Amino acid sequence: MLKKREVAVISAVTTKCGEHWDKGIKDLAWEAGVKAVEEAGISGKDIEYLVVGNMSGGMFVGQEHIGALVADFLGLNPIPSLRVEAACASGGVAFYQGYLAVASGLYDVVAVGGVEKMTDVEPEQATSVLAGAMDFEWEAYFGATFPALYALIATRYMHEYRLKPETLAKIAVKNHYYGSLNPLAHFRNKITVEEALTSPLVADPLRKYDCSPISDGAAVAILAPLDIAKKYTDTPIVVEASAIASDTLSLLKRRDLCTLDATVNAANKAFQLAHIEREDVDLIEVHDCFSIAELLAIEDLGFCKKGEAQNLVEEGQTYIGGRIPVNTDGGLKAAGHPVGATGVKQIAELVKQLRGEADKGRQVDGAEVGLAHNIGGTGATAVVTILSRRGA
Amino acid sequence: MLKKREVAVISAVTTKCGEHWDKGIKDLAWEAGVKAVEEAGISGKDIEYLVVGNMSGGMFVGQEHIGALVADFLGLNPIPSLRVEAACASGGVAFYQGYLAVASGLYDVVAVGGVEKMTDVEPEQATSVLAGAMDFEWEAYFGATFPALYALIATRYMHEYRLKPETLAKIAVKNHYYGSLNPLAHFRNKITVEEALTSPLVADPLRKYDCSPISDGAAVAILAPLDIAKKYTDTPIVVEASAIASDTLSLLKRRDLCTLDATVNAANKAFQLAHIEREDVDLIEVHDCFSIAELLAIEDLGFCKKGEAQNLVEEGQTYIGGRIPVNTDGGLKAAGHPVGATGVKQIAELVKQLRGEADKGRQVDGAEVGLAHNIGGTGATAVVTILSRRGA
Repeated sequence: MLKKREVAVISAVTTKCGEHWDKGIKDLAWEAGVKAVEEAGISGKDIEYLVVGNMSGGMFVGQEHIGALVADFLGLNPIPSLRVEAACASGGVAFYQGYLAVASGLYDVVAVGGVEKMTDVEPEQATSVLAGAMDFEWEAYFGATFPALYALIATRYMHEYRLKPETLAKIAVKNHYYGSLNPLAHFRNKITVEEALTSPLVADPLRKYDCSPISDGAAVAILAPLDIAKKYTDTPIVVEASAIASDTLSLLKRRDLCTLDATVNAANKAFQLAHIEREDVDLIEVHDCFSIAELLAIEDLGFCKKGEAQNLVEEGQTYIGGRIPVNTDGGLKAAGHPVGATGVKQIAELVKQLRGEADKGRQVDGAEVGLAHNIGGTGATAVVTILSRRGA
Repeated sequence: MLKKREVAVISAVTTKCGEHWDKGIKDLAWEAGVKAVEEAGISGKDIEYLVVGNMSGGMFVGQEHIGALVADFLGLNPIPSLRVEAACASGGVAFYQGYLAVASGLYDVVAVGGVEKMTDVEPEQATSVLAGAMDFEWEAYFGATFPALYALIATRYMHEYRLKPETLAKIAVKNHYYGSLNPLAHFRNKITVEEALTSPLVADPLRKYDCSPISDGAAVAILAPLDIAKKYTDTPIVVEASAIASDTLSLLKRRDLCTLDATVNAANKAFQLAHIEREDVDLIEVHDCFSIAELLAIEDLGFCKKGEAQNLVEEGQTYIGGRIPVNTDGGLKAAGHPVGATGVKQIAELVKQLRGEADKGRQVDGAEVGLAHNIGGTGATAVVTILSRRGA
């Protein structure tokens, strides 16, 4: 294998997530793109390559060809552009492709975007669109929805590990708490365990507050080789590793309902490539599309044994100051889940934290290493990326 | 820039294109995947990375997450997989991503697929789905269809360069002739100029035989570093260069309706990287989604001046034995246009030709260098790839 170049993030930003009735997919991409270029202190002309994560532009707004569309509206023609898609992991996979482009030496300054405009369709239609992430013939066709599939996982997990609904509620409470401190979050309201436990049932045992929202939003990161990044910023954030793994789309083919093997595989690969240990990680951004998914992620990433993440939650160890702060931006639950953008949004949060620039009350003091975990479907795709402030 | 590894194609295959009522998107991908692995003489376990081009799985069959889906059904888990999309250039862009993955030294054996299942929706609905490749807000919303946009280009071209409908008809006649010699082509029937000129008008001046069909199909190529490829085959086909360029999605923003700048830019970049001259190219596979597009491609790729490709057609120079054989498999017109697969299908044809293994009557004798040209929309994305049999 060739020696790879070290890659750093020069800037990483998100739009506010939410229901943006006044903004289309182009507007969201443009807003994030301009903000990223400004924060990076580069010119649009410096960008050599563009990768955009988007899950379902076709079904949400009738628009495919999103890579070229974003290049067009950001005035980046004629640079190469493309869209990558891996359902809700589209953003993470886009980041990986950008990383590959720079690490390979083929490109220097690369923009990685993620964008999704979800609210132009009715909520029930959005649920159908999102079902495109599962195995259509074996799951969606028979009426499965994602809340239903994650409810199956939660039910099995409750049976195997005696998880209580109160523990899931506490995950939502934490994420809403951090969302309240994040001006760009979709939801800014704090909630209580009582509110979560009495919120409407969506798919037993999952209730409203166990589910992430349907959000519009975009995020963009600018990558460059570390030596070039240092010319633009005093705090380049080094990409220590990024890894992807895949698994069966349908739950019925999995060896264990309570483990996402793709997360396990991607995490092991990423830690091995990064030469970093779990105990060196200061915070993690995990894919909490449903509260149960945050528990699985903490375990499958290797931060504790299977069945024990609930103890971390009960002890408050996933808050800042605890053993492993999780989703300090509010996560998918509160910060929002514009599906194709989420993986890049996670990177933006880590970069902010590793630079010590997080909003008041939600900065992890002295954070040196952060990990992002982005999945598609019920974990048919998982992307794990480890960043550090070693370059600063 | 790091020194890149030389990349070669070990195998490249397509399914038969057509209306496959008995096959879904998984079946098509599986069929091409198994065939490619067999032809390569590798095992599925040797594949380290999978990139799948697909334009609109969501809108055509309700299925996104196509990379992981194909990995799943080919039994490739847990390798990294992703889908890339650039409208009808999705296959070409997927090939580029696979090339990047191997050239970078990050992966050795990489599978690049393209797949599209288009016939599960009604033809008029397929037209709407394909409109996702144009600028939805500025073109599709106002009722534009691709036949209409290419008709605008053809009309302008006729005005500027005195192109006659007979010349466009001759392009279709050639492509149907080569389709008749290609067992995997969607259409095997020969047609006459008279038939083409009297076929139903689709969008004036384009008639039925000026338009490529709606096809189901899949194609897969297996890539590896040249030194490793030589272990598997005596005729590895070297990827001399691959380049992508982007342009505005909407025609109204173009400087010239008769030139696809993305093709010009991608071609110039590819020839520069390959250190190959136009006169060294023995055959080209171009993106003839409409007959007029074949003319534009020949010119924009640099094989003649603007306005002069019609002379090559009139003189029969685009047939085998002529100055530059074009679309010896029948092109999109006759071999078929399963949109996300087309770019990889073109690679399969070049590999066959460069190995001297094309079907009887359509082999370009002694072909050493071939070029593939794949575009998305009306040219918002163009991919140009140059292959040679130098490795043999």
